[in-house]
Amino acid sequence: MSLKDIAVVLVRTTHPGNIGATARAMANMGLTDLRLVDPVGYPGQEATARAVGASELLEQASVYTSLDDAISDAGFVVGATARPRRIAWPCSEPEAAMRIALGHSTTTNIAILFGREASGLTNEELDRCHLHVRIPVDDRYPSLNLASAVLIFCYELRRLSIDEEISIEDHDNTETVLARAGQVNDFFGHLEAVLHEIEFLKYPSSRLLRRIKRIFSKRPLEAQEVNILRGILTSVQHACRNSENTEKHRS
Amino acid sequence: MSLKDIAVVLVRTTHPGNIGATARAMANMGLTDLRLVDPVGYPGQEATARAVGASELLEQASVYTSLDDAISDAGFVVGATARPRRIAWPCSEPEAAMRIALGHSTTTNIAILFGREASGLTNEELDRCHLHVRIPVDDRYPSLNLASAVLIFCYELRRLSIDEEISIEDHDNTETVLARAGQVNDFFGHLEAVLHEIEFLKYPSSRLLRRIKRIFSKRPLEAQEVNILRGILTSVQHACRNSENTEKHRS
Repeated sequence: MSLKDIAVVLVRTTHPGNIGATARAMANMGLTDLRLVDPVGYPGQEATARAVGASELLEQASVYTSLDDAISDAGFVVGATARPRRIAWPCSEPEAAMRIALGHSTTTNIAILFGREASGLTNEELDRCHLHVRIPVDDRYPSLNLASAVLIFCYELRRLSIDEEISIEDHDNTETVLARAGQVNDFFGHLEAVLHEIEFLKYPSSRLLRRIKRIFSKRPLEAQEVNILRGILTSVQHACRNSENTEKHRS
Repeated sequence: MSLKDIAVVLVRTTHPGNIGATARAMANMGLTDLRLVDPVGYPGQEATARAVGASELLEQASVYTSLDDAISDAGFVVGATARPRRIAWPCSEPEAAMRIALGHSTTTNIAILFGREASGLTNEELDRCHLHVRIPVDDRYPSLNLASAVLIFCYELRRLSIDEEISIEDHDNTETVLARAGQVNDFFGHLEAVLHEIEFLKYPSSRLLRRIKRIFSKRPLEAQEVNILRGILTSVQHACRNSENTEKHRS
C-alpha cells in the first residue's frame, strides 16, 4: 500500500494558484502523482509561487486534454462533490472513502477527482466515479477552497496509511524513567510531613491530603520529577529552619 | 459540546493572507472564535481578500497584545508544533488531541495555538499548553501552510463533533471545573516566587523551573486544585516568616 499509487486529478481548474497550493498540500502528505485536465493559465508563475517548495511535484504533473485519458489507468475512481445529486450514488465522507481507496490501492491505481472552483464536477464526470465523497462542511459557509479540499483528502490518506498507532501518551515516554511506587510513597510521606510542619495540615490525615496527592497522581511521575519535588520539600524545611538560625545568630 | 467554545489563536502571524485563509477554513468547519496575538499587517486588504465570504468571522476576531490575555479564559490549551522538543511533553496527533479537546469543551473554554509561519511557537508559548499536537506531515516536505494546519485541526473537530459517539476520556470531567489559564499563570508566578524565597531556585529563570511547571501541566489543573496549591505556597511563606517572628519574640 503506497500513497504513490494514488493520483489527484484536478479537472479544469480556473485559478492556477490553486494548482500550486494543491501540489504543496500533496507534498506535505506524501502524495506525488498530480494530474491536470485542461487547466486554465497553467503552467505559470502563480502556480509555481503557491507551490512554495513543492515545485518538483508540480513540474512532474501530467497535463491531459480529456478526463478519460487522465484516469485510464485507474481501477478505482473517487469524486469530490459539494452537493447531493439527484441520482442516488454511493456517497461517503472522506475518512471512510479514503479507507476504501487505500484498500483498493494494493491491487489497482486510484484516482481522486476534483472539479472546477465554481461548479465542481459535471454530472457526466461524476458518473465516472465509483464513489462520491462530500466533506462535511458547515452549511452556513460551505465554500471550501479547492486546495483545502485536496488537503483534507490527502490528510486522511496519510493518517490512515500511517500504521503505527501514535499513542496519546508521550511518544518519547521510552526516554523517561517512571518513578517506582516506593519512591512516590516516600515523596508523599515527605510531603505530608512538610505540610504539617508549615501548618497547612493540622490533623493526622484528611480528605484534603488525598486531594493533594491526587494532583501528583493524575499522571505517572518520573523518577527525576520525584527527585525535584523532594528537593523542593527539603528546601522548604531548610528555609524555615534557616530563618530560625539566622534569627538566633542575630539575637 | 459546541465548536463555538473552541478558540483558534494565531500568535504573531506574519502574512495577513494567512489570517484571512484561517477565517475561511474556520467558517467552513463551523468554528467562530478567532483570536489574534500581535498580528503583522492586520487588519488589511489581504486578510479580507483571502477570507472570501468569511469576512464576518474575520471582523469579529479579537486582537490581543499578549498571549496571556488571549487565553486567559481557557481551561485547556493545545499548541500546534512542527518539531519534537527537548523536554518531553504530552504530544499527540490531531485526531486524538481534538477528541480530548472536545471532551473538555463541555466544562471549559478551549484554545488552540498556532505560531509564526517561519518559526512556530516559542518554547515559552508551548509551555502554556497542556498538549502539543503535531500533524503527521511527510518528512521530505514538512512545510505546511499556516491556514492549512488550522484547517486540519478544524476538520478534525468538525468530523468528531458530528460523530455522536465521542467517548470522553476523563469520565469525571463533568464534575470538575478546570482552572483558567490566567489562574494557572498566577499560580506559576506564586510558585516561582516561593522557590526563590526558599532558595531552591537561585537564578531568574531556568530549565529546572520549566521542568517543575511541567509536573503541574501534564494534565489540566482543576480550579480547586490551584486554590489548594496556592494555599500551600502561602503556608510556606508564613512558616518561614513566622519562624523568624517566633525567634524575635524568644530573643
